[in-house]
Amino acid sequence: MTSEEESAAAPAAGSFDEHNLTQTVLQSVAGAKDPRVKQISEALIRHLHAFIREIEPTEAEWGAAIEFLTKTGHMCTDTRQEFILLSDVLGVSMLVDAINHRLPGRATETTVFGPFYVEPPSFEDGADMRGYLEGVPLYLSGTVRNEAGEPIVGAKVDIWHSNDEGYYDLQKLEERSELAGRGRFLSQSDGSFRAWTVRPAAYPIPNDGPVGKMLDAQGRHPFRPEHVHYMITAPGYRRLVTHLFAQGDKYLTSDVVFGVKSSLIRNYEPREGGTAPDGKAMDGKWLELHHDFVLAHVA
Amino acid sequence: MTSEEESAAAPAAGSFDEHNLTQTVLQSVAGAKDPRVKQISEALIRHLHAFIREIEPTEAEWGAAIEFLTKTGHMCTDTRQEFILLSDVLGVSMLVDAINHRLPGRATETTVFGPFYVEPPSFEDGADMRGYLEGVPLYLSGTVRNEAGEPIVGAKVDIWHSNDEGYYDLQKLEERSELAGRGRFLSQSDGSFRAWTVRPAAYPIPNDGPVGKMLDAQGRHPFRPEHVHYMITAPGYRRLVTHLFAQGDKYLTSDVVFGVKSSLIRNYEPREGGTAPDGKAMDGKWLELHHDFVLAHVA
Ligand SMILES: [Fe+2]
Ligand SMILES: [Fe+2]
Repeated sequence: MTSEEESAAAPAAGSFDEHNLTQTVLQSVAGAKDPRVKQISEALIRHLHAFIREIEPTEAEWGAAIEFLTKTGHMCTDTRQEFILLSDVLGVSMLVDAINHRLPGRATETTVFGPFYVEPPSFEDGADMRGYLEGVPLYLSGTVRNEAGEPIVGAKVDIWHSNDEGYYDLQKLEERSELAGRGRFLSQSDGSFRAWTVRPAAYPIPNDGPVGKMLDAQGRHPFRPEHVHYMITAPGYRRLVTHLFAQGDKYLTSDVVFGVKSSLIRNYEPREGGTAPDGKAMDGKWLELHHDFVLAHVA
Repeated sequence: MTSEEESAAAPAAGSFDEHNLTQTVLQSVAGAKDPRVKQISEALIRHLHAFIREIEPTEAEWGAAIEFLTKTGHMCTDTRQEFILLSDVLGVSMLVDAINHRLPGRATETTVFGPFYVEPPSFEDGADMRGYLEGVPLYLSGTVRNEAGEPIVGAKVDIWHSNDEGYYDLQKLEERSELAGRGRFLSQSDGSFRAWTVRPAAYPIPNDGPVGKMLDAQGRHPFRPEHVHYMITAPGYRRLVTHLFAQGDKYLTSDVVFGVKSSLIRNYEPREGGTAPDGKAMDGKWLELHHDFVLAHVA
């Protein structure tokens, strides 16, 4: 038998402690073949350890963090991406967006992609994409141009938005398994496009999961201001992913995912009866939302 | 219709940009009721944003990070905890352990809990806990004392280890749905305990998931040096979670989870035939591993 004293005198074949641990972990990734993997791994280790050393979590707190991440993973399905929500509400999605879109001055500003995109059905110019959605008619129009002001012909303009209660069709697939409130339009020879749909609404991001619990603990509401999503692509141009926000919405200054930029706040212009820009005779309330989009050339 | 120029002149009801984003996100958690939630949230936001600002991920890279986290979550089941593995291989588990166990000099050092603990079956002192495991017999013995050297009577000594191929019973439940190689023993009136089992083996952590892929990309092997796990609890004392590592193991200096401390490296003493300490007549090769554990009083 070996006594405690003999053990203490054993040669240190390996010994990691609070002092040298971060350096040891950094050294462990020194052999990564891909220099980018090495760079990201090292930065992750440094910042993650700095976070831990700052907050000094109890074992119970770190256990709760593991459980939070596990629940967040288990919440992810084909139609629910809880880790994107987490990235969104921590401002990381907008930070990544900003880093990747340091665009020339005239180009339309970008914002978060969000979790509710799927490739939409194609429509003729001016068609109604509301599907089964009900609500106040909304006439969307705009142009797609380059930084020189020249029209871009045949750009794919994907548009999607929530219903008038703030839910996307993807969140209602169990009740009604069809898409609604989303469509793909092509810009015409003068770069213009138009579409009919119905007005969306401000909405809470899905908050019945771990991210919702976190927001609650952080004293935050889960709402996004009313918006319509656009993704515009054309060969030779950088993909534009953005929203148009409804001017006057009470959540503009506290968007839970930090997606608002002042250039993207637009007047959803209220109309009553009369004739729509496409010549359609209107009855009652409707709205018009126009925006001229500017795409940046690929670098 | 509103022109692009009018839009640019619209008042900034809300506008988050690369420059002010981190500050904006920090402000959003200012209303957290629990000051610890506020502190952790703020630290998380600062360190996470600093990480993102340093590596400047492309959108594809951030998408891959989201996918990595999602797959890691989906890999977690009742018997597989991929986020604990991730925490382990990034050195975070050992860092949390170190922060929480700045123990008085004489107390036994701690190491990672690992993902393979379940409450074990109870055994009489000196019983054989190998269950269906095969291999070289291993006689475990030790004492449980306090910092003053006084024996602690009736301490729960939970012991668990892998089989001779490096797998835990929990990883083999589909093949054989019973526990093996784990047991609970109680320290006797002199603080001593003893148990029979079989020798474990160095082993790779489960590496068929996202964490295994990450290790591979980082140029790291997935192995842990051979060890036996101990968790010792007694009223009035801090819970001790530790391992005893096999002296001479080739992975002692590169344990994938950074769990090795020199005081925990022990000689698994080789024996041949003769009589075991409990009087049992032995045939062929066997091993003896003794350690005197010291528990710290609760603060
Ligand atoms: Fe949205
Ligand atoms: Fe282990």
